[in-house]
Parts: sequence; C-alpha cells; structure tokens
Amino acid sequence: MARFLKNREESKGQSPGALIFIGEKKTTSVQARVIDYDSTILTEQELSHIKDGSHFKQTNTVTWLNINGLHDIEKIKEVGQIFDLHPLVMEDILNTGQRPKVEDFNAYIFIVLKMIRFDTETEMIFNEQLSIVLGDNFLVTFQEQPGDVFEPVRKRIRRQKSRIRGSGTDYLAYSLLDTVVDNYIHIIEVIGEKIEDLEEMILEGNDTTVMEKINAFKREINYLRKSIRPAREAILHLSRLDSDLFQESTIPFLKDLQDLINQATEAIDTYRDLLTDQLNIYNSVMANKMNDIMKVLTIFAAIFIPLTFIAGIYGTNFEYLPELHYKYSYAVFWTALIVIAGALLVFFKRKRWL
Amino acid sequence: MARFLKNREESKGQSPGALIFIGEKKTTSVQARVIDYDSTILTEQELSHIKDGSHFKQTNTVTWLNINGLHDIEKIKEVGQIFDLHPLVMEDILNTGQRPKVEDFNAYIFIVLKMIRFDTETEMIFNEQLSIVLGDNFLVTFQEQPGDVFEPVRKRIRRQKSRIRGSGTDYLAYSLLDTVVDNYIHIIEVIGEKIEDLEEMILEGNDTTVMEKINAFKREINYLRKSIRPAREAILHLSRLDSDLFQESTIPFLKDLQDLINQATEAIDTYRDLLTDQLNIYNSVMANKMNDIMKVLTIFAAIFIPLTFIAGIYGTNFEYLPELHYKYSYAVFWTALIVIAGALLVFFKRKRWL
Amino acid sequence: MARFLKNREESKGQSPGALIFIGEKKTTSVQARVIDYDSTILTEQELSHIKDGSHFKQTNTVTWLNINGLHDIEKIKEVGQIFDLHPLVMEDILNTGQRPKVEDFNAYIFIVLKMIRFDTETEMIFNEQLSIVLGDNFLVTFQEQPGDVFEPVRKRIRRQKSRIRGSGTDYLAYSLLDTVVDNYIHIIEVIGEKIEDLEEMILEGNDTTVMEKINAFKREINYLRKSIRPAREAILHLSRLDSDLFQESTIPFLKDLQDLINQATEAIDTYRDLLTDQLNIYNSVMANKMNDIMKVLTIFAAIFIPLTFIAGIYGTNFEYLPELHYKYSYAVFWTALIVIAGALLVFFKRKRWL
Amino acid sequence: MARFLKNREESKGQSPGALIFIGEKKTTSVQARVIDYDSTILTEQELSHIKDGSHFKQTNTVTWLNINGLHDIEKIKEVGQIFDLHPLVMEDILNTGQRPKVEDFNAYIFIVLKMIRFDTETEMIFNEQLSIVLGDNFLVTFQEQPGDVFEPVRKRIRRQKSRIRGSGTDYLAYSLLDTVVDNYIHIIEVIGEKIEDLEEMILEGNDTTVMEKINAFKREINYLRKSIRPAREAILHLSRLDSDLFQESTIPFLKDLQDLINQATEAIDTYRDLLTDQLNIYNSVMANKMNDIMKVLTIFAAIFIPLTFIAGIYGTNFEYLPELHYKYSYAVFWTALIVIAGALLVFFKRKRWL
Amino acid sequence: MARFLKNREESKGQSPGALIFIGEKKTTSVQARVIDYDSTILTEQELSHIKDGSHFKQTNTVTWLNINGLHDIEKIKEVGQIFDLHPLVMEDILNTGQRPKVEDFNAYIFIVLKMIRFDTETEMIFNEQLSIVLGDNFLVTFQEQPGDVFEPVRKRIRRQKSRIRGSGTDYLAYSLLDTVVDNYIHIIEVIGEKIEDLEEMILEGNDTTVMEKINAFKREINYLRKSIRPAREAILHLSRLDSDLFQESTIPFLKDLQDLINQATEAIDTYRDLLTDQLNIYNSVMANKMNDIMKVLTIFAAIFIPLTFIAGIYGTNFEYLPELHYKYSYAVFWTALIVIAGALLVFFKRKRWL
Ligand SMILES: [Mg+2]
Ligand SMILES: [Mg+2]
Ligand SMILES: [Mg+2]
Ligand SMILES: [Mg+2]
Ligand SMILES: [Mg+2]
Ligand SMILES: [Mg+2]
Ligand SMILES: [Mg+2]
Ligand SMILES: [Mg+2]
Ligand SMILES: [Mg+2]
Ligand SMILES: [Mg+2]
Ligand SMILES: [Mg+2]
Ligand SMILES: [Mg+2]
Ligand SMILES: [Mg+2]
Ligand SMILES: [Mg+2]
Ligand SMILES: [Mg+2]
Ligand SMILES: [Mg+2]
Ligand SMILES: [Mg+2]
Ligand SMILES: [Mg+2]
Ligand SMILES: [Mg+2]
Ligand SMILES: [Mg+2]
Ligand SMILES: [Mg+2]
Ligand SMILES: [Mg+2]
Ligand SMILES: [Mg+2]
Ligand SMILES: [Mg+2]
Ligand SMILES: [Mg+2]
Ligand SMILES: [Mg+2]
Ligand SMILES: [Mg+2]
Ligand SMILES: [Mg+2]
Ligand SMILES: [Mg+2]
Ligand SMILES: [Mg+2]
Ligand SMILES: [Mg+2]
Repeated sequence: MARFLKNREESKGQSPGALIFIGEKKTTSVQARVIDYDSTILTEQELSHIKDGSHFKQTNTVTWLNINGLHDIEKIKEVGQIFDLHPLVMEDILNTGQRPKVEDFNAYIFIVLKMIRFDTETEMIFNEQLSIVLGDNFLVTFQEQPGDVFEPVRKRIRRQKSRIRGSGTDYLAYSLLDTVVDNYIHIIEVIGEKIEDLEEMILEGNDTTVMEKINAFKREINYLRKSIRPAREAILHLSRLDSDLFQESTIPFLKDLQDLINQATEAIDTYRDLLTDQLNIYNSVMANKMNDIMKVLTIFAAIFIPLTFIAGIYGTNFEYLPELHYKYSYAVFWTALIVIAGALLVFFKRKRWL
Repeated sequence: MARFLKNREESKGQSPGALIFIGEKKTTSVQARVIDYDSTILTEQELSHIKDGSHFKQTNTVTWLNINGLHDIEKIKEVGQIFDLHPLVMEDILNTGQRPKVEDFNAYIFIVLKMIRFDTETEMIFNEQLSIVLGDNFLVTFQEQPGDVFEPVRKRIRRQKSRIRGSGTDYLAYSLLDTVVDNYIHIIEVIGEKIEDLEEMILEGNDTTVMEKINAFKREINYLRKSIRPAREAILHLSRLDSDLFQESTIPFLKDLQDLINQATEAIDTYRDLLTDQLNIYNSVMANKMNDIMKVLTIFAAIFIPLTFIAGIYGTNFEYLPELHYKYSYAVFWTALIVIAGALLVFFKRKRWL
Repeated sequence: MARFLKNREESKGQSPGALIFIGEKKTTSVQARVIDYDSTILTEQELSHIKDGSHFKQTNTVTWLNINGLHDIEKIKEVGQIFDLHPLVMEDILNTGQRPKVEDFNAYIFIVLKMIRFDTETEMIFNEQLSIVLGDNFLVTFQEQPGDVFEPVRKRIRRQKSRIRGSGTDYLAYSLLDTVVDNYIHIIEVIGEKIEDLEEMILEGNDTTVMEKINAFKREINYLRKSIRPAREAILHLSRLDSDLFQESTIPFLKDLQDLINQATEAIDTYRDLLTDQLNIYNSVMANKMNDIMKVLTIFAAIFIPLTFIAGIYGTNFEYLPELHYKYSYAVFWTALIVIAGALLVFFKRKRWL
Repeated sequence: MARFLKNREESKGQSPGALIFIGEKKTTSVQARVIDYDSTILTEQELSHIKDGSHFKQTNTVTWLNINGLHDIEKIKEVGQIFDLHPLVMEDILNTGQRPKVEDFNAYIFIVLKMIRFDTETEMIFNEQLSIVLGDNFLVTFQEQPGDVFEPVRKRIRRQKSRIRGSGTDYLAYSLLDTVVDNYIHIIEVIGEKIEDLEEMILEGNDTTVMEKINAFKREINYLRKSIRPAREAILHLSRLDSDLFQESTIPFLKDLQDLINQATEAIDTYRDLLTDQLNIYNSVMANKMNDIMKVLTIFAAIFIPLTFIAGIYGTNFEYLPELHYKYSYAVFWTALIVIAGALLVFFKRKRWL
Repeated sequence: MARFLKNREESKGQSPGALIFIGEKKTTSVQARVIDYDSTILTEQELSHIKDGSHFKQTNTVTWLNINGLHDIEKIKEVGQIFDLHPLVMEDILNTGQRPKVEDFNAYIFIVLKMIRFDTETEMIFNEQLSIVLGDNFLVTFQEQPGDVFEPVRKRIRRQKSRIRGSGTDYLAYSLLDTVVDNYIHIIEVIGEKIEDLEEMILEGNDTTVMEKINAFKREINYLRKSIRPAREAILHLSRLDSDLFQESTIPFLKDLQDLINQATEAIDTYRDLLTDQLNIYNSVMANKMNDIMKVLTIFAAIFIPLTFIAGIYGTNFEYLPELHYKYSYAVFWTALIVIAGALLVFFKRKRWL
C-alpha cells in the first residue's frame, strides 16, 4: 500500500460529506471519555452511550470529550449531531489521510494534526490522525487508536491549582497541541542522534549497510516532514485567526507553540541536508576505495606481467637461443628482473601510489 | 510528437479566436447530453441537434450540457452561439493544449482542467482536456473523447434527496471538479505504490531494468505534475473569485477541494523526491557492486600473477640454473608459493577485502 | 564572442542615450514600410525617405511603420524625431542586447522582445531584437534584419472584415506579440520533440554522441529561456499597466497572451528538467556498462589466471618433480583444471555475474 | 547526543512555563553582576544575593544585570520575580535550545541569540544561549557559562565620555548585539580562510583526509547557519518593532547591525557553495586519478599479455614444431615482439594515453 | 586571508562609529580632487588640504569631490566634518568590506558599491569599494586606490553642451553608477567568452587542466556575484527612494540602470549554470573515457589470457602427454587458438565494444 498517500479508493466519487472511514479497520469498540472541569469542580467519566455526553454541552465548564477509534461510523455521527458539525468536518475526521490544517467555522475551530510514533525496532515512523473540534465550552478530540500522549495534560487538569484549571477551552487546546509538538521534537531528536552517528560509520567505510541506513532515514525524515510542515502552516494560521474563541492571554502561548514547531521543521531540514551530505561523502569514500583497489591491482600487474614475459622468453624452446648457454645468463636474468621491478617501484613511488 | 507540448502548427499565425481543433481527430460524431434538474424535476436527454439545447437556457432549472468530442467545429460553434461565449473561450475549448486555468467573464466562469488516466499496460499517463463553462443556470462541459469520471455525479443527481438536487450550478461545478481531483489522488496513489515498491528492487540490485523504471516513473510524475500544479493555482483562484455565481454555502466545499488538490501536489512532490533518492541509491549500489567486482579481480590477479611469475622462472631453459637440480627444490618451490599466497591473503584480509 | 551577453565594448563609458548600434553590421540599406488603415481605408507603402512617414502621424488611422535594419543610425534618429522618442528608448532600440521589457512613457509604451529562430542544420537558436513603440494612433516596429513572422498579421489587415481592421493600435500590438509568442511555442515544440527522442538513444547506450546532444540542447534551452522568461515578466507587466493606450476590449486578449507565454516558460522548464534527468540516466547507463565490462574482464581473468599458474607449475624444469612422471598425471591435471574452472563458474553464477 | 537539536526529554509533557534547565549542568555557583550608570555616575557590583539587585530597578539610571549560569533555578526565578517576567520567557531562558528570536512584551523586549565559539583544536563550533531582557531602565542578560565577548562594551561604559554613557538601555542592547554579531563575522572569517585553503589540497589530490575536512567544515558551517540565520530574522524583526523602548537615534545603529548580520549570512552561504563545489572538484580529481591508474594498467597489460602469449607458443613442447629449429627463429621472434610492442605503443600514443 | 570576507579583526569589539581602516594599507598620500560646475562655469582642482574643499559646499554649483585612498584617517575625518556625515557612514567608508547598499539620511544619500577589475594574467577578479555621498549640491566619492573608470564622465563634464552640465548631482550620481555597472557588464562578457570557450576543450577531453579552469571560473563568478547581486538590490532601493534629492527627469535613467544591472545578474546566473553543466559534461566525458580504457584492457586480457593458458598446457613437461607427439598437433593447436580468438572477437563485436 502506498505509505505516502492514504488509499481513498472507497471514497472516490462519493458525494462530499459522505461518511466513510479511511484507515485500518479496528475490532475493539469506540471509546468515549469525558473530562469536565472548571477551577472548582472536576468530573471524569467513560461514556457508554455517546448521547450521555450531550448534557455537558450546556454547562459553562470546560468539557473535553476524547474519542478513541473511528471505525464505528454511527457513533461518530452522533458526536457530529450533538456538536452540530459540518458534513465536511465529519468527512475529514473519518477520512484519516487529511493534510494537517486549521479551519474556522465561527461556532467552532476545526484542527487536524498528526500524532507521530517512532518504532525503535523497525526504525520507522508511524502516524495517527488527531482531529480537534474547539468550541466555546467544549473540546472534542478524535483519535484513530487508543493510547495517546495526553496523559500529562490529564494529570495537570487533575491538579486544582494548575493554570489549565483556571483557563478555558482555548488553553486546553493549546496544551494538547503543545504536547503533540513536544513529541515531534522528541522524535526528531531520537532519529537525529541516529543520523549523526552514521557519520563515523561512513568514514570507516567498511559497513556496507550504511547506505541502506542513509536511505531508510531519508525516507523516514521525508515521511515526518509530510506531517510536520503542514502542521507549521496550520499553527501559524491558528495564531493569526481572529476568533472570539481565543482569549488574549492565550496568544503568547500560541507564539511559543510557533517557536516550537519552527524548531521542529528546521531540525528536519537540517537532518535532510545532513543525510544528503552523508550520501555524497559515502560516494566519495567508495570512489576512494575503488582507487585503492585499482592501485593494488595495477602495481601487481604492472610489475609481474613484464617479469613473467621475460621469464617466458627464456622458457621458449628455440634450438638456437644463445643466451641459454652462457654461464652467467641466469644471474644476469635475475639482475634484469630485479632492476625492472625496482624501476617500476620507483615509478609508482613517484606517482605516490605507494 | 512532443508529448509535453501539444503541436499547434495549425494555429500558428492565426487570428486570435480562430477556431481550430488541436488534438487527435476522431471519426465518431460529437455527442451532446443534457441533464436538467431542480429539487423536484429531472430531465435527461441526448441531443441530436445542438440547437435543441437552447430552450433549457431560459428555464430556472440547473442545466448541464455535456459535449463529448470537439472535432466537429460547426457544432461547437453552435454551442458557443447559444451560450454567447467569447471567441477566446471558444478557441481555448478547441485548442486542447491549454494550461489549466480559471477565468471570470462576469456572465460566466470559464474553467479548464485535465482529466487524467493511467494506462496500466504501458504504465503511462494520458490526459484529456475538460473545459467547463459555469453560468447562472447552466453549466456546459466539453470533453475530447467519450467516457469520463462523472457517472457517480449523475447518479447523485438522479437521487432526488441529494444535496446536489437542492443546490445550484455552482455546487454542480464543484461536484465535477471534486470528482476530477479525487481521480488525481487515486492515480497518484496507484503510481506511488509502484514507486515505493521499486526500493526493494534497487537494494537487491540485480534487476537492470530498475533504472529504466525509475526513469519512466520520473517522466510520468513530471507529466502528471504538468496537469496538476496549474490545476492547484486554478482552484485557488476559483475560491478567491468574488463572483455572484458562487453561493455562500458552496465556499466551504471549495476550501475542501483546495485541501484535496494540495494533497495531490504534495504527494507528487514527495514521489519526485523519492525517485531522485532512489536514483542516487541505485548509483551507490552500482558503485558498491563495481567495488566488489574489482576486489575479486584484484585478489585473483594479485595472488596468481606473482606465483605464475615464479613458476615462469623455473620454466626457463637456462643451462646453468642450479636450483633446478637440487633434490628439495620442488618442495621449497611449493613452500614459497604457499607462503606468498598466504601472505597476500593476510594482506587482503587486513584491508577487509575478504 | 560571448553568445549569452552581447558585446557592448563600444557603448562602454558613453553618455546615456548615446546612439551606438550594438549588433552585426549589415550592408543592405534600412527598409521602412508603412501600413496605414482603419475599418474602411488601407494604404501599404515602402518609404524611401523616413520623413515621408511623418504625415501618417497626424491622421486618425492606425499607422504601422516597420523598420528593418538598424545600422544606419541617422535614419533611426529621424524616426525618433518624428515620434518624439526619449533618448534612452533610442539607445535601447539600437543596443540590441536589451533584456525583454515593457516601459510606459505615457505618450507611448515601449516594448522590447526577442524574435527567435531555430536553425535546423546547426540545431541552434538565434534571436533578433524586436522593439515596438505603441502610440495613440501609430505603432513602430524595429527589427535587426529583414524577414519576420508578421506576414499572417499583414494578411489579416488586408482582409477588410477582420477584427484587426476594426480595432486600434493596441490590438495591432497584441497581434504582433501573439505571433511572436506563438512562434516561441512552435520552436519549443520542435526542440522538445528532439529532446524526447533522445531518451531511447540513451537507453540503448551505444551512441556516444548522445551526451554531446544532451549538452547542446541544454545550452539551447538555456539560451531560449534567456529570451522567454523576461518576456513573460514583460507581458505580465503590460497587462497590468494602467495605460489609456489599451482599450477595455483588448484586455482579454492580453490575458490570453499571458496564458500562452506561461505555457512557453513551463514547457522550457519541463524540458530543462527532462534533460537533467536524461544526463543522470546516461551516467547510470554508463556505470552499468562499466560494471558489465568489468564483469567480463574479471570472469576471464579469475578463471584463466589460476589455471595458467597450474600449467606453469608443471612447465618448470625441476629435475626432481615426481608428478611429471606418473602415468595419469596429465589426466589428473586436466581434471583439476576443469574442476577449478567449474567451481569458479558456479561462484560467479551465485554472484549473478553470469 | 544529537548536536543539532537539544535534548528536551525532561521538559516533555511539562506544563508550559515549567522551569526546567535544559543544558549541561554546572557545579559552580550562579554569578550576578550589576553595572549601573548614567552620563555622570557609574557603579559596578557583584551581587551575592539576587534580591540586592532589585533596588536598581527603581532608579532612572541604566542598569545592566548579567547572570552567568542557569542551573540554579531558584536564583533565576528570583530574577524573574524582580523584573516581572512572563512564565514563557522564564522557560525560554532556562531551556537553552531556543531558536534565536525577538519578542515584544510591551513592558520589555525579550531577545534570544547564540554566542558562538570556535575551538581551534577540534575545529568545531560551540554555542551558548544568550537571553536579553530589555526594559525601560534595565537590561538583564543570561548566559549559560562564565566568560563572554562583552568586555569591550564594559570598557566603553567605564569611559565617561563614550556615546554609551550618554544613551539608554536600547543603545546598550544594540552594543551587546553588535559585539555578538561582530564575533560571528570573525569566526566565519577564521573558518572561511581554512575552507579557501582546502582548494589547493584538493587539486594536488594526494591528501586523502581532504574529503573528511570538506565534510567536517560543511557540518560546522551548517551548525553555524543554524544559529545565525534565525538571528538575522530576529534582528530584522527588532528593527521593525514599533516599541517605545527604542529611541529614534538608535535606529541607524540597528540598520547597521542588519548590514552586519546580512554580511554574515551571505558569507555562510558563499562558503557552503564553495564546499559543495570543492566536493565536486574532489570527485572529478578522483575520477581523473582513476583514469590514470587504469591507463597504466591497460598499457602494461595490453603490451605484455600478447607478448607473453607468443613466448608461450614457443615454450610448448610439441615434437613437431618446425619454427623451433630454424637458425634465425629467435631473431625473428624478437623482431616480432618488438614490432608488436611498437605498434601497440603507437596505438596508445594515438589515443593520447601516453 | 579569507578572500570572500574581509578581515575585521581590528574593528572587533570597537564602539560603533569607531574609525578604523579595513583594507590594504597604502603608503602614497590621499588624493582629493574637486570638479565644480554648472551649465556655465567649470573648475577642476587638486586639493592639498581637504579643508580647501569646504567653500564649494556653500555654492549652488554641482561639486564633485573625489577621494583616492582611505588610509589617512584624519583626512577622511575632515571630509566627514565638512559634509556633516553620520559616524556610521564614516565607519562604512573606511571599513571597505561593506555589502553594497543604499541608505537615505535625508540630508544626503549614502551609496556603497564595488568597482571590479579583471586581471587577465591570473584570471582573477579584484574589487575595490566605492562609497558615494550624494547631497543637495555636492557629491563625494571615496575610493581605496587611485585609478578608476570615471574618466569618460569627467570628459563629458568638460563638454559644456553635455546633459550632465545641465543637470544636478542626482544625474552625476547616476552617471557614475552607470559607468560602474557598464563595467560589470564588460567584465562578465570577457569572462563569459572564456567560459563559453571551455566547452570545446571539455568535449575533446584531453586537456586535464580544463577541470581546474571550470573550478577557477566558478570561484570567480561567485566572487563577482557577491559584489553584483547586492548592487542590484541597492539600485532597486535607490530607484524606489522617495527622496527630494532626485529630480523627476532622472527617474527614467535610474530605470535604465536597473535594466543594466538586471542584465548583469542574469548573465552571471547563466554562466553559473553553464559552468555547472560543464562540470557534469566533464564528468560524463571522463566516465566515457574510463569505459573506453576498460574495454581495451578487457578485450586484450580476455583474448590473450585464455590463449596463453592453452600454450601453457602444452608447455608442461608431463612425461605422458600424448598430444605433444602427434604430427599435426601444432597445426591443430594454432587452429584452436585462432578459432577461440575469432569467437571472442565476434563476442565483443556483438557487444559493440569494437
Ligand atoms: Mg470526496
Ligand atoms: Mg475534506
Ligand atoms: Mg497520513
Ligand atoms: Mg501531505
Ligand atoms: Mg536549513
Ligand atoms: Mg559519483
Ligand atoms: Mg493564437
Ligand atoms: Mg487561449
Ligand atoms: Mg497538456
Ligand atoms: Mg493556456
Ligand atoms: Mg484534506
Ligand atoms: Mg514534500
Ligand atoms: Mg550606457
Ligand atoms: Mg537602456
Ligand atoms: Mg540577446
Ligand atoms: Mg538577459
Ligand atoms: Mg513544470
Ligand atoms: Mg558520475
Ligand atoms: Mg513545553
Ligand atoms: Mg518557549
Ligand atoms: Mg542551539
Ligand atoms: Mg524557540
Ligand atoms: Mg537550520
Ligand atoms: Mg550565495
Ligand atoms: Mg562594529
Ligand atoms: Mg556599518
Ligand atoms: Mg568585498
Ligand atoms: Mg555592510
Ligand atoms: Mg554572496
Ligand atoms: Mg536593458
Ligand atoms: Mg538564467
């Protein structure tokens, strides 16, 4: 399956807003979890029926509804009905091949990002679509699979004194995005270290797998870039939205987020350049080794082939070959061999091949 | 024939607006098909005379006139007269080498795109020009050949409850464009999968056709890009037009279309980069193989050429060659050969060529 | 002489507006031809004295004065006096190394373009400077040499019913530019076809001139680009000028011209990329061939050098060499040779070199 | 550890504004030094308790508080409290992997830059984060380690007649930035000289370490660029801030600073290009040397292998081999050898391999 | 010394505006020459004391003060005092490593450019800083060394009827800039011709110095670009300044200057691309030659090594070797050799190596 573009076969030719799940089908059921809080109260609850979440919408508290798993379209539809989401938003949530983006629908802001994961065994990057709907007093997150990087945010919510408890949904949204981007930085750092370590292997030049590694990291860095570069655009867009949903005090935090994602994209570009340089160096190392091999071959061949020819002369069986019969011929013969070999050695020494 | 630029020989030096068909001449007759609908009524009809379509223009219903085949210039002219099209529009419809674009003529918007097709046998991309004239209550599409990707749109029109039946020509235009772009994504995905599969073939390095494949895909990706990149510009332009022909409610759909075409162009860039990387890797694999070949040659030559020389010495027929007559000469000779060969093997082992 | 930059030696250090002809000196005399028309009348006339053209300036008809040849500076000066041209305009007309551009002098618009010609024998591009002065009711064109691409425009002028006869100097200027750009497209198409044909030659890999051809086309494409890219800027500039000299009805034609020049520049970029890809492929084909050559050498050398060594052993003249005297030695010797050769063949087969 | 991205493991998932020191932990204590001055008075003082610095804040003098060492978070927090710094500013000061930037918080401007150092022994660049908080009548600088480039600025402050003594905190900030950027230029100049010197080594082509040096400088130049390019953005941003903290008379100095940083980034780009060119030249030199090696091998092999074959013929022991018994055979044999060798030498001479 | 960045060691850490001369120290004294003119009067005078120039400042005539040599800082300071120049301007005049630029100080415009010189012997570019201060009725030029390209301008000033005599300081400034840029074009043309001539040398492929030449021209073109690209920015900036110092009538001349500098930068880019292409072609030519060399080697080796082996067989001394004793063995042996050689020749012919 093409990894750089999600197969949309099923959605081809469908009417816009047709709700089709594009992604790996899961068998576990969809999980819905609500955290509802303000500076004084806090409720955490696993919803067995999506509809149970609807009453949180009326209250003035911050309501974070997190959905894990998108394969049960009916349940996702219910969420859409409760929060009155546009059909195109619903489609984008389910069609998990979306490009990261931010869209302002006045009543809510719709954010799509990728959460990334580095599998240390295969040394490959995997990503999962995170869709966020940020409303006035609610925030809904949609994930493809259980397991996320948000546990530290939940912990902070549980601490009554935290800034997050005294802030609105905009700060909660920022906190989630910040966590996602922090994770980008972390993963780039892990891969970056591996890339920087390649350099020594290249200069030694004996590990033939190093080229495959350069190639593999290049592919993973490109894959990463595909998620992170549009995320930068999206975050820039977010901090320039003129939306009532964002309070003045949250703006510096969005700027800080921009700093972070800029760092991520620059680091990716740096590592891409580094890999390109490494491949060039690798090719030069290979060419150097070839030169070395050929020098050895040439020196052996150029010295011994003429000598063998001379020996061949005196190995002929001509009846009238006078040199064969002189007393000192053999000594002269050896002297000639040594002189020729010596002269060639000097020649190669002068050429600095030795 | 130059594939990347359509031959315009015939139109060279003609007055602007001169109607000359640039494309493959067809023998089948031009087909004209009307679908006329609003939320309650629906008429589908094959027109035998273009003029029969003119009465649909007055009604308030949405009228979609689709023309298949452009080689009968008289018929195309009639369409132009009915809908009062500018001579330059008429010229662009017939001159099928147009760059995708959007132009606003106030009374109508003129859109040119390419429909693309991937031939799985030759693994080549083919394209066909699609011209769309979007008026207040009519929409005319011009195609070079019969057969298109719009059947799902027609099906949706036939379903009375569909959004398309309750909307105007702008939404119909969007639906057609969405279908075209969905098809771009699909074809990129098909080619992309083939490109991603090349990687393994390269690392094995034994298939000499892999380079030709990289080359062929590079050419096809460039060909695709030639259609799709200006299409992105065109769609961006469309969503920024300040035209009365577009209703407020259609705008989010145009934004969604932009998302889609952005994904298409990004995927194309990604695959282009991938192919460039693959060619680099291929070249490194080749250089590695060359090194291997030369090592084998050098080892064989460097070991046996000196040994042959020594054998040559004792193959000479010098009369006074004392070593030949000693009893253990032959054993000493073998010992020397083995020692030399062993020393050279150690030397190559140390160089890690073995 | 540097082909990519015209020698300005003579104009170096001259005061601005100094009239010095930069180009090949011609011996034929300067030709001046007037076509004067409106929707009813038409006069065509070869002027023997430039001054005879001055009375056309007063009339309300469209007057097109075409000058062929710039080496007679006095005559060119007279034209400048009649139409009151700025010294810098005069200088640019004569100094034919100008970069294509459009300048608005209120009373007239000054346009510089290159007319290009492809010499099929040398497969080289040649260009000639075309300067256009577009006034209210006159248009003057300056060419370096006789012969141009404007004959079809003249024919259209001679047809009384043509759009050109009913329009002003702006539409005439457009018609000339359109003809020039049509010719760009045509020449790119001719070269493009030749470039696309190179691909097959490369993959066969036996024609050693293919590299020189890639190189030559790259140079010609760059030379073409040098004329056409600034022409695109100039035409864009022209269509954005807010000049009274352009009527509302001519604007769509300028937009069409922009389409055309965009197509030209994109095609040039496409062919540049294609040539770069072709050079890469050529290098890979060369590397593949080198691998093949080395494999043949290595297989021959690696098989026969050891065998020759063994034959050499038994060609020595040691007195005490027991194997020489056994009855089946020769058969054993052959068996050994065959076994060794067979083993090496299997080894190379396993390496897939055979 | 990844050198191109600072490990943020510890800050991952922390709430924004969480104060965690990212950098090498130091054991020496944090140093705080105050210089307080106006055109008449001057006080310099090492603070043992950060709080002692707070009274300088009220006075109208310029107060420069310099902090060396960031590992004692409590002390840094105190500074934050005295000058009322935003939690995100505090975080950025401690998290020393920041990208250079300028942020306007109205009450103060927050500036992050890198001070760079070139270690001549390892030929590597090291950097240290410099954070500057520029307020109305105070300026705080934070450095990771003791030792800086600011001593010349301190000397100028001590001279009562200097421009700096008659100016405000904005001019002090400019002076520090100017010193930092001057140091960039100096270090680029040092590395640049080394890079320019590589060229001769490459053309000689005998030093195999030259490729490793090209590689190492490329890496260092990239590392430098990572600090300096965002610094350019930051300084551009600074000179465009519409802040009351900057006096009119300081603006020309900021423009001068922009000139300087532009020069720095251009020089970096120039040296990057130079290194790329050098690697290309190096590869061509290698290919040339390979050609030379192969020519030597081919000439020796092509001349002596046929001669050895002929000698081999007459080394055979065929009973009926008539040539062996002719009187002049040996002379004819030698003549043939010499003719063949001569012909081959002429052949190679014609090919210009000799 | 780093050629691409001037050593500023001495100015490091100095206060801004500190007057330190950065450049080669000269021993000849500083020359100051005044030309004072309007349409009727003209005075030319060599000043022995700078102060003697101050009275020209009051008059309404155009005063051009040209300073040759910057090493006598006191004299330069005097000029600064007479014309009331900002300390940063003074610093930039003396610190000759400035990037070309234009700055508006209201009372005057400060312009920095490079005058370039091509040394035909070393084929290297050298540059010299030209600083221009353009005031209301004075213009001061500062050069590092005696000798400039301005003699033609002086001649024009001496002609009473020239446009320059009837214009102000703005037109004088334009004339100087035009002369400098004309000189850029001229030098690019000289180098360009040499670069275009390289092509033939490359395709012949026998001159091993061609690669060094490509390299050297690449370096010089880059060096040139370093002076000329910022000059383009500066001239663009100049023509967009909204300064009272420029009269309406001078604007078209500034636009003409922009044309010229655009041509210069485009030509530089063209030649850069040409050199890159040439290096690629050179590498391909090298690879082709390598292939040729290896083919010769392989053909000789592959034909004669097996033949030598066969001769070796019959050179063995086995007692029981029946073939040696047959009458026609030697004839059969020769036949076999010829058949094998012929078969191999056919094989190589088929591979098109012959
Ligand atoms: Mg869809
Ligand atoms: Mg969507
Ligand atoms: Mg994805
Ligand atoms: Mg994407
Ligand atoms: Mg970067
Ligand atoms: Mg290479
Ligand atoms: Mg046309
Ligand atoms: Mg058109
Ligand atoms: Mg097309
Ligand atoms: Mg077009
Ligand atoms: Mg999308
Ligand atoms: Mg990409
Ligand atoms: Mg001039
Ligand atoms: Mg001009
Ligand atoms: Mg030209
Ligand atoms: Mg040009
Ligand atoms: Mg293109
Ligand atoms: Mg190569
Ligand atoms: Mg954080
Ligand atoms: Mg931060
Ligand atoms: Mg850092
Ligand atoms: Mg940051
Ligand atoms: Mg960077
Ligand atoms: Mg540069
Ligand atoms: Mg300074
Ligand atoms: Mg300065
Ligand atoms: Mg300089
Ligand atoms: Mg500067
Ligand atoms: Mg530069
Ligand atoms: Mg020009
Ligand atoms: Mg160019």
